[in-house]
Amino acid sequence: MKSLVELIEWKRDSNRHSEDEIARIVQAFTSGEMPDYQMAAWLMAAFLRGLDADETVWLTRAMRDSGRVVDLSSVEAPVVDKHSTGGVGDKTTLVLAPLVASCGVAVAKMSGRGLGHTGGTLDKLESIPGFRVEMEVEQFVEQVRSVGIAVIAQSPEICPADKKMYALRDVTGTVPSVPLIVSSILSKKAAGGASAIVLDVKTGSGAFMKTEEEARTLAHELQRVGRALGLKVQCVVSDMDQPLGRAVGNALEVCEAIRTLHGDGPEDLTELCLQLGARMLRLAGVVDDDAAGLARVKQALSDGSALDTFLRWVTAQGGDSRVADDPDRLPRSEYSTVLAATEGGFVAGFDAEAVGRAAVALGAGRETKEQPVDRGAGIVLAVKRGDRVDRGDPVATLYASSVERLEAGLERLRDAVRLSAEPPAPAALFHEV
Amino acid sequence: MKSLVELIEWKRDSNRHSEDEIARIVQAFTSGEMPDYQMAAWLMAAFLRGLDADETVWLTRAMRDSGRVVDLSSVEAPVVDKHSTGGVGDKTTLVLAPLVASCGVAVAKMSGRGLGHTGGTLDKLESIPGFRVEMEVEQFVEQVRSVGIAVIAQSPEICPADKKMYALRDVTGTVPSVPLIVSSILSKKAAGGASAIVLDVKTGSGAFMKTEEEARTLAHELQRVGRALGLKVQCVVSDMDQPLGRAVGNALEVCEAIRTLHGDGPEDLTELCLQLGARMLRLAGVVDDDAAGLARVKQALSDGSALDTFLRWVTAQGGDSRVADDPDRLPRSEYSTVLAATEGGFVAGFDAEAVGRAAVALGAGRETKEQPVDRGAGIVLAVKRGDRVDRGDPVATLYASSVERLEAGLERLRDAVRLSAEPPAPAALFHEV
Repeated sequence: MKSLVELIEWKRDSNRHSEDEIARIVQAFTSGEMPDYQMAAWLMAAFLRGLDADETVWLTRAMRDSGRVVDLSSVEAPVVDKHSTGGVGDKTTLVLAPLVASCGVAVAKMSGRGLGHTGGTLDKLESIPGFRVEMEVEQFVEQVRSVGIAVIAQSPEICPADKKMYALRDVTGTVPSVPLIVSSILSKKAAGGASAIVLDVKTGSGAFMKTEEEARTLAHELQRVGRALGLKVQCVVSDMDQPLGRAVGNALEVCEAIRTLHGDGPEDLTELCLQLGARMLRLAGVVDDDAAGLARVKQALSDGSALDTFLRWVTAQGGDSRVADDPDRLPRSEYSTVLAATEGGFVAGFDAEAVGRAAVALGAGRETKEQPVDRGAGIVLAVKRGDRVDRGDPVATLYASSVERLEAGLERLRDAVRLSAEPPAPAALFHEV
Repeated sequence: MKSLVELIEWKRDSNRHSEDEIARIVQAFTSGEMPDYQMAAWLMAAFLRGLDADETVWLTRAMRDSGRVVDLSSVEAPVVDKHSTGGVGDKTTLVLAPLVASCGVAVAKMSGRGLGHTGGTLDKLESIPGFRVEMEVEQFVEQVRSVGIAVIAQSPEICPADKKMYALRDVTGTVPSVPLIVSSILSKKAAGGASAIVLDVKTGSGAFMKTEEEARTLAHELQRVGRALGLKVQCVVSDMDQPLGRAVGNALEVCEAIRTLHGDGPEDLTELCLQLGARMLRLAGVVDDDAAGLARVKQALSDGSALDTFLRWVTAQGGDSRVADDPDRLPRSEYSTVLAATEGGFVAGFDAEAVGRAAVALGAGRETKEQPVDRGAGIVLAVKRGDRVDRGDPVATLYASSVERLEAGLERLRDAVRLSAEPPAPAALFHEV
């Protein structure tokens, strides 16, 4: 058996690891026997030399098995997980989970905290007064059984290898590698008990994958590795070249999600939730095809059953479900200002990543793990791609808890809007994979 | 200015660093601001993506300036340093330093501890009873002035960046990279006050550079980067496809070095010392060409002045100079055995690295930094390349402090000897660069 240094040299010299070697690296790193600096060297070697199809599967499996694997077999309903690679203003889970749960598909989801320009689902949920995201695994499974939805913080018992590896990748320049992204996502999902997953791979200025080609490569790898681990995986590639919906920031996004469950949400968010929901129903075997799934989720949205399920879910996790009818119960930061167009034209698009960074500057996200989040801060866009604006028209309203933060956010947001003389060509919201 | 993560990403993506960026990395790592795991990632990226000619010069300079730079301008005699990239049985410094010092060239050398299959000069010197290698920089300079030689342990004030980087490279699979080797060697030498250096680049089975081509590449880089730092550098590439001389192990090598200073040393060791010495004299400006240098050092060896200088040097550093006439004063391990040839033939060569590992197994070297060294352990070869042996003839005598160690060494040494039916073609001891 090779020593840890020899394993690093092996990958450095472009060789292929055996399944045992990959398992050894993951086990040694998780136990602390392999120090961070050796893992950092291996990660950079793996980043630059690549991991092949088998190595990626073995890595994912070893990471899954680095901690507890949740058993969801006691849940009677079919269980489907949903994951997005992260985008700006992505509040899909808040709408989608109750939407499919109201159609008889249980949603069991463990989620991470947001970092950088994309907000985390947990931070959004916690802006609902009383909402608890910390829960024992037993309670989690019980709530999936009884309510049909549970969305909680990643348990430290689950996939400890991924937790340590992701923290290290984040500070060693080894994040944007397809094999490392795939193993990180799928190991967590598999350890969380998922057997069927719909994956929403974001592409565009606000996503990790800047081009559709990169996103498709990632999507195909997710499907391939998922299958190898015995998971049913369905991917879509969706547009993140402008924020999803109009709200960016925790409570603002909850508010928009609730409006969407009332049938009154932004067109793009509604459409994406319906399409993803249809696929989740098909993957769960509740319907035979996407068309039937689409009809079913549209019905659940219009007859109020999705909203009812949302209320039961919020209540089950200790949240104040009255927010659904009274959005003023959600936090809202004290100061606000309006960004006005300095010239006329058509909105050609947004630098969605810059919008995300503006939201972070306003206080809605964290730059370091320790930083608290201002749940009432954020941005509500007044315009979307294709809209016409005249000079002086409002482009967005910004919310923050101090004038300084408001100005910092305003400055960043100003450059995020792209105007053009002609209306932009229409862009597809999402692509099948 | 880029953040540390951005600097790692910059090299990861094959970009070229500016001089400021390199200086920033070295400074941040030396101060502890850049943790080991980030440096490990950068080192692997630099290993795989490379550092160009300028980056290597900038790295060397930044490492030199990470600590104190010794000022040897108060030494009246010309000062020349000597460095070998490390080989098995390489006791050259012990002969060469007094040889050139007796010709009016001062030698000021800071040395590291041996690790792995190549022994360190310090361990060899310390096998002389009383010999001290720890010394303040002021004393070091004073001894160079008064005695003409000082060889001491690397001061922690000198080149702290290299000390930290080398320790990290050793455990992260980032040692065998030409730019990293060059910057490590030359930054230490320059910080140690050297302005002229003769570098002995070893090639063959017992060296880091396994082929002559690799060794030449390293030698050219050492000369180029040395010049850029204002150093006079002369390289030779010398054979390490069999151990140098016949002794491998600390006290055994001191004994052989003394015999060589008596004019009674092995041919290859004597020849290499004379050739390197001639070049040191020329580099110092004491002679005009290598031929004149060669005549001068031969004279110093035959008239006993080299040996006299050795005695003064040993005395100056607290060592018992009586070892020169009475080798029994040197430690010798209690147990010994003879390896006999199991078949007849010509000695075609040695796996010198395997000989080095056998010496480590006997106790003569360390596998980890903390391990103590048995100064009386080691190997004395009875044969060299080209010699004829019959079945049962002695090949080597092994020394160790326990029967277990003796057997461990014997087992490793057995496979290190290559026999052939025909005498091997003669091989050059060294090549000019």
